[in-house]
Amino acid sequence: MLVDMSLKEFYQVLSSDSPAPGGGSVAALSGAMGAGLVSMVCNLTMGKKGYENVSENAEKTMARSGSLGQDLIGYIDVDTNAFNEVMAAFKMPKETDEQKKARSAAIQEGYKAAIRSPLTIAEACLEIMELADGMLGKGNSNALSDLGVGADMAYSGLKGAVMNVEINLPSIKDETFASDTTKKISSLENRGAVLAARIREYVKKGGQA
Amino acid sequence: MLVDMSLKEFYQVLSSDSPAPGGGSVAALSGAMGAGLVSMVCNLTMGKKGYENVSENAEKTMARSGSLGQDLIGYIDVDTNAFNEVMAAFKMPKETDEQKKARSAAIQEGYKAAIRSPLTIAEACLEIMELADGMLGKGNSNALSDLGVGADMAYSGLKGAVMNVEINLPSIKDETFASDTTKKISSLENRGAVLAARIREYVKKGGQA
Repeated sequence: MLVDMSLKEFYQVLSSDSPAPGGGSVAALSGAMGAGLVSMVCNLTMGKKGYENVSENAEKTMARSGSLGQDLIGYIDVDTNAFNEVMAAFKMPKETDEQKKARSAAIQEGYKAAIRSPLTIAEACLEIMELADGMLGKGNSNALSDLGVGADMAYSGLKGAVMNVEINLPSIKDETFASDTTKKISSLENRGAVLAARIREYVKKGGQA
Repeated sequence: MLVDMSLKEFYQVLSSDSPAPGGGSVAALSGAMGAGLVSMVCNLTMGKKGYENVSENAEKTMARSGSLGQDLIGYIDVDTNAFNEVMAAFKMPKETDEQKKARSAAIQEGYKAAIRSPLTIAEACLEIMELADGMLGKGNSNALSDLGVGADMAYSGLKGAVMNVEINLPSIKDETFASDTTKKISSLENRGAVLAARIREYVKKGGQA
């Protein structure tokens, strides 16, 4: 499992001439790091002196960021598997008509899985950004830059996941699936950009909104 | 060492109520993942059929992205150590005038180290973005989204590192150091934004520049 590799090992296997793991797994990792930083800021806020009235919000936020982070840690491997599924489908026999049909269906199913996986990553990343946004002015002020970096890692995860959706979209023959997906990624990217700009601005001003 | 932790363990220690590792180490990790993806795209280009005339460029790019990636992997731990240095300085005795002076100097030195470290991370991340930019139209087209994700991870590393510089700047008493640093981070951010937008646009169009 990729998640059991050390940071150093993962970096090495990423750099290698194997196409997997690639951008999809890195997008999931980026989102998980974002969730981890949001959780850390919550941990540094909950029950701390001067933060009594925002403690409950931090606790609720952490429950959710912890859950999303775990999901994303899992997606580091799932995304690489989805990619391998497409590769495997392409290697299916294509001599008889029946084989051609089965192969083509398996390829389409593989591409859909290779789209659903980063789409789920992008949705989780956007939710982490919403959580970070909800912590502005309500978190330990010494950890403001960590909240900013966390939001930005989630934003990178979102954008990376969207690029992985886009790259597979032209291979999809199901038009409804394709147009629904296009709408979803456009909405995710737009909302992500709004949150990223707002959080960055807040951190730059040192928390004076 | 943080870099010897598994992805899963690093995520857990990041989420915890300890302020270190925090955003600085994550910025270095993000940059390293960017470098890893750029190296992977180079590896998928070098010596491959149809990429003969860009093979040499890919090889040169990989030598540099490999070196920057290794540096950044190292900075995952360095950045956390720099933060711990400031924390340690604050705990120095402050009873006599001499102790106060030594403590104050150690705190200032700690803050400067805590600025120099993310500044180096930001510079390495910008160079990774330049390398990714130089690979546009010259890399394996099947790995275009990986190049896009790689550039974005480096951009996130750059922005995260800059936030870590900013958060420590108000504590610096040396005005020349402070104004030089402000100029540097502003220039890094501006160039990063230009490259990020150009690379994103190129990937969105599927490589038709």
